[in-house]
Amino acid sequence: MRFFSDNAAPVHPAIFTAMADANVLDTAYDGDRWSKQLDARFSELFETEVRALWVPSGTAANCLALAALCPPHGSIVCHRESHIQNDECGAPEFYTHGAKLFLADGEGAKLTPETIGAVLDATRYDVHQTQPHAISITNATEYGRVYSPAEVAAIGDLAKARKLALHMDGARFANAVASLGCSPADVTWRAGVTALSFGFIKNGGMNAEALIFFDTALADATLYRRKRAGMLLCKGRFLAAQLLAMTEGDLWLDLARNANAGAALLAQAAGDRLVHPVEANEVFIRVSAAEAASLRALGFDFYDWGPGEARLVISWNQDPADIRPLADAIAAL
Amino acid sequence: MRFFSDNAAPVHPAIFTAMADANVLDTAYDGDRWSKQLDARFSELFETEVRALWVPSGTAANCLALAALCPPHGSIVCHRESHIQNDECGAPEFYTHGAKLFLADGEGAKLTPETIGAVLDATRYDVHQTQPHAISITNATEYGRVYSPAEVAAIGDLAKARKLALHMDGARFANAVASLGCSPADVTWRAGVTALSFGFIKNGGMNAEALIFFDTALADATLYRRKRAGMLLCKGRFLAAQLLAMTEGDLWLDLARNANAGAALLAQAAGDRLVHPVEANEVFIRVSAAEAASLRALGFDFYDWGPGEARLVISWNQDPADIRPLADAIAAL
Amino acid sequence: MRFFSDNAAPVHPAIFTAMADANVLDTAYDGDRWSKQLDARFSELFETEVRALWVPSGTAANCLALAALCPPHGSIVCHRESHIQNDECGAPEFYTHGAKLFLADGEGAKLTPETIGAVLDATRYDVHQTQPHAISITNATEYGRVYSPAEVAAIGDLAKARKLALHMDGARFANAVASLGCSPADVTWRAGVTALSFGFIKNGGMNAEALIFFDTALADATLYRRKRAGMLLCKGRFLAAQLLAMTEGDLWLDLARNANAGAALLAQAAGDRLVHPVEANEVFIRVSAAEAASLRALGFDFYDWGPGEARLVISWNQDPADIRPLADAIAAL
Amino acid sequence: MRFFSDNAAPVHPAIFTAMADANVLDTAYDGDRWSKQLDARFSELFETEVRALWVPSGTAANCLALAALCPPHGSIVCHRESHIQNDECGAPEFYTHGAKLFLADGEGAKLTPETIGAVLDATRYDVHQTQPHAISITNATEYGRVYSPAEVAAIGDLAKARKLALHMDGARFANAVASLGCSPADVTWRAGVTALSFGFIKNGGMNAEALIFFDTALADATLYRRKRAGMLLCKGRFLAAQLLAMTEGDLWLDLARNANAGAALLAQAAGDRLVHPVEANEVFIRVSAAEAASLRALGFDFYDWGPGEARLVISWNQDPADIRPLADAIAAL
Repeated sequence: MRFFSDNAAPVHPAIFTAMADANVLDTAYDGDRWSKQLDARFSELFETEVRALWVPSGTAANCLALAALCPPHGSIVCHRESHIQNDECGAPEFYTHGAKLFLADGEGAKLTPETIGAVLDATRYDVHQTQPHAISITNATEYGRVYSPAEVAAIGDLAKARKLALHMDGARFANAVASLGCSPADVTWRAGVTALSFGFIKNGGMNAEALIFFDTALADATLYRRKRAGMLLCKGRFLAAQLLAMTEGDLWLDLARNANAGAALLAQAAGDRLVHPVEANEVFIRVSAAEAASLRALGFDFYDWGPGEARLVISWNQDPADIRPLADAIAAL
Repeated sequence: MRFFSDNAAPVHPAIFTAMADANVLDTAYDGDRWSKQLDARFSELFETEVRALWVPSGTAANCLALAALCPPHGSIVCHRESHIQNDECGAPEFYTHGAKLFLADGEGAKLTPETIGAVLDATRYDVHQTQPHAISITNATEYGRVYSPAEVAAIGDLAKARKLALHMDGARFANAVASLGCSPADVTWRAGVTALSFGFIKNGGMNAEALIFFDTALADATLYRRKRAGMLLCKGRFLAAQLLAMTEGDLWLDLARNANAGAALLAQAAGDRLVHPVEANEVFIRVSAAEAASLRALGFDFYDWGPGEARLVISWNQDPADIRPLADAIAAL
Repeated sequence: MRFFSDNAAPVHPAIFTAMADANVLDTAYDGDRWSKQLDARFSELFETEVRALWVPSGTAANCLALAALCPPHGSIVCHRESHIQNDECGAPEFYTHGAKLFLADGEGAKLTPETIGAVLDATRYDVHQTQPHAISITNATEYGRVYSPAEVAAIGDLAKARKLALHMDGARFANAVASLGCSPADVTWRAGVTALSFGFIKNGGMNAEALIFFDTALADATLYRRKRAGMLLCKGRFLAAQLLAMTEGDLWLDLARNANAGAALLAQAAGDRLVHPVEANEVFIRVSAAEAASLRALGFDFYDWGPGEARLVISWNQDPADIRPLADAIAAL
Repeated sequence: MRFFSDNAAPVHPAIFTAMADANVLDTAYDGDRWSKQLDARFSELFETEVRALWVPSGTAANCLALAALCPPHGSIVCHRESHIQNDECGAPEFYTHGAKLFLADGEGAKLTPETIGAVLDATRYDVHQTQPHAISITNATEYGRVYSPAEVAAIGDLAKARKLALHMDGARFANAVASLGCSPADVTWRAGVTALSFGFIKNGGMNAEALIFFDTALADATLYRRKRAGMLLCKGRFLAAQLLAMTEGDLWLDLARNANAGAALLAQAAGDRLVHPVEANEVFIRVSAAEAASLRALGFDFYDWGPGEARLVISWNQDPADIRPLADAIAAL
């Protein structure tokens, strides 16, 4: 049983069905009937007018958003353990043409107004330093922590006061919303978010994420940047169809709830071993090398997360029944 | 019946089957068992050792290739009607960090040693001009013309003599090879091609092209560029599976042969109306506005290609029986 | 006697005097008392409020202007024989992060509303092509031709109608204004120019050009770009002092008038040999190889400008008495 | 008396003399007789064959060097308080097209093999992170600390073992060499340095620094990058002449020795107030706000360097007699 990563999990059957339905001749790029539904679909989901663009990867969503929010001579405040800093091989710098990431701290890879403020206050506001134009937060974070609407709003207020845009990397946005039980609107635009990378791939999708602009004026230039990045796929209808299938009813939420529930099961078993509170679908536990080996000997795979820690990620398709054996094994360590 | 573009056509059933087969848990990115087969599969197909990377779009394939072949302060000779110049919204400039495209002429969007030489000879070899580092040709061209192995080799010889790399945009490479009846090797590395964008999407694929490096040393840095561009999709196995399905047996060639045959049917009917010799799956005909309207009235859709011309593209899935009515209608004009 | 280029000429003594006067301790970068005078000085010269930044080269002035006027996914219409296209090694692409130059025609390297319009009309207004954001013209042109206020205004009107910015490369702006006898305002902002590269180096300066923004809102971001390009020199007062010395009284105009007068002398002698009307300080003449050799044998140096043509450039410091022998030699050919 | 910064100091008379001597007609750009002497002059100074390019700013020297040493998808290890990180508005990212700076620690802004190693060891060597290609150290550092030949060699050995290039930001290289009393070669190429930004502007120059490549093969592409950056000034002979004047005899060393001696004078007076050992021409002292105010009341100007600290920089032209009053005032605090 593998607990490596939700990004390696299979694709949900509804995605295949939707793609099969879209397998007819239609207009290329994003002129097809599926792509044309995205603005309306996500506007409904977010209870406000948004612009929604499909992109084939989370990195594309993040970096197109950042390029829309920050000029080449600007900087973006993010957590020093964020995906955009550590896991995208400089894609933010590529897409923004060299903007700098200013690294801030925070427990569980969560930023706070205080840690962001510390970075902003350490910046000299002269031409010798790049000037902050945006903040980027991740919800849920790299450590499976979730920002509440109030926490995002506190950062949103800071952003507004400092005239900064606010980006949310939502590669696991579904897990965050499922965890919070709030409206997607509450934890995004109502809390001051300008643009959202709305992830589906880790949640049962194949290769479509939604880039959501709450500031709709930002979308037009992004259409050119998407094309220019080679991201405007010929047969975009297959990406749009994925997004529509996922947001048909509450599929995206149901899948995330299932993954979160699995993580909760492990969290309960792990008890004092937990490194971070479990709020989404990731579980970080303290295990000795011997303990990790014993779990692996039982057939469980996972990442070593630095010395003495392991990361367990639950995917959309893992049943509680499948997870129970790992929970028992952890409890028995 | 639509003859707009092969890039809007449906996806071949084998692609769906292959993707369904790949819908199991495996390693993310390109660590899966499908991606790991690409080098061997394409080395076999090209009868030499190559490196093969999947990418989700033809623009990505072209521009990652160009970035591998040309530094930011260099230039690339291409046809003034090439896709990289006119249809990628500056993606070559984005990926190469600002290299220049030097535009050359040639009938049917085909370059020749003479037209390339004219551009090279007009360049001043001093630091005030970007220096040519590569030539990019398209096979089949924007006008459905095909370079023969000898024609490519003539350009390859020039490239070698001038110490330039040679890129081939093969968005319709299958149609070219089907038309030539040669080995894929003959029209690529044996003729001096350094890197090939091997297209499958216009030929029944969904969203996977193969970037082939005949100079294998170029692949390693490209792995970073692909990631940095947001092109290293999480579930890359679905792209690799498409490429494997297409190159299983001669599927890619069979599909291209069918499309080419359809075009030949139209060509025969068009006679003197042909703007360009029909060598692949595109047919350009002279029609008056009234004639174009009459064809449309019969239910045929296509692009107007400048005043007095129409472009008809045959897709992998169009039967001769479906094409015959258009052929008859053209003949009857 | 050398007629190679005005950019190789000596520096006017007033420049040295001004730099010697500025050789005191003052604030670094552009915080000094000389730099602080530039906005006022050039606002007076242009009879409107402008922002004026010193930069150490004409390429820097041009490309910082273009970066202010055009996003990376945009394009700039310029003449195919312009300096930004042919003589800056891709600096526009570097500074704009990959915007494209769209090449237009026109006699004497002058654009017209018609030739610009032809390029604009050939552009598809979709995301597959970079969209024009600016026009760049050169006054005086590479061939020593001068745009009149009316000619610039015609282009300015087109720019306004098409919502394009208008940049003027004024490496030889002084020669143009001296030739026209108009106010600098007439041929710039009153005619619709958004930003001007105001050249002094070819006109007796050492290493300071002025980048003038008539749309003053564009200056602020450019301050960051100038720094980021390594162009914000520590001891900027020496550049500012040069600009102030040149615009003290009519020095800049007097020097340009002298150079233009020298060119007029040659033009008169050249008669039918002239390739272009002589309107500034450059003279292009038809000469056979033997004739060119005979001129060189007399001690005159100049550029061969393609087969059968020679370029003669008069510098600020060349006396009519010095030029007369060349005029006589040409007349005697 | 101002102790703000050596980059605001006046220019040495020898520079003016050299520029006056160069004020004759010669070839433009770097084709003149002064520019052509640089390779030989600096090869002699460094006792090995080098390539030497003039550039008009230290930022240009640093960033052209970094662009030669690191691809866009790479990273550069530097101190978190380095000039390239904090004071160049993202110029390294601009010139390298988005390479990342990896920040390392070290007392007095000095890196060590250990602090560099910590950064290298924390890097994942996969395509998800930019891979280190270079180390950049500053000698003398932002805090006036000097790397000895042995210290540089230790880093050079690490660089070699890890296949990284080694850049030295020598904006105050003269002060470092004057302090060490060694050969310039000992602290550069003999210790493993690949490229050096050799600063003259803070040491009495006007606007010329030398970019030195010990790996001479790197120079050729840099000639294009320099042009492309707008850094290839028309009248380059005035920059070359500055470098030749400075390296004629030991002028550059004499000026640096004088500045260092002034700093030593202050260091002696400051005693326990010193924040860093004084090894070059910068003195950082602990002073209360009241003490700082009292010094300013006596006519001494300087930077507040964070709360409770002041930075005093001695310039090439400050006599011991002029510095003595400040030394006395500090001693009397």
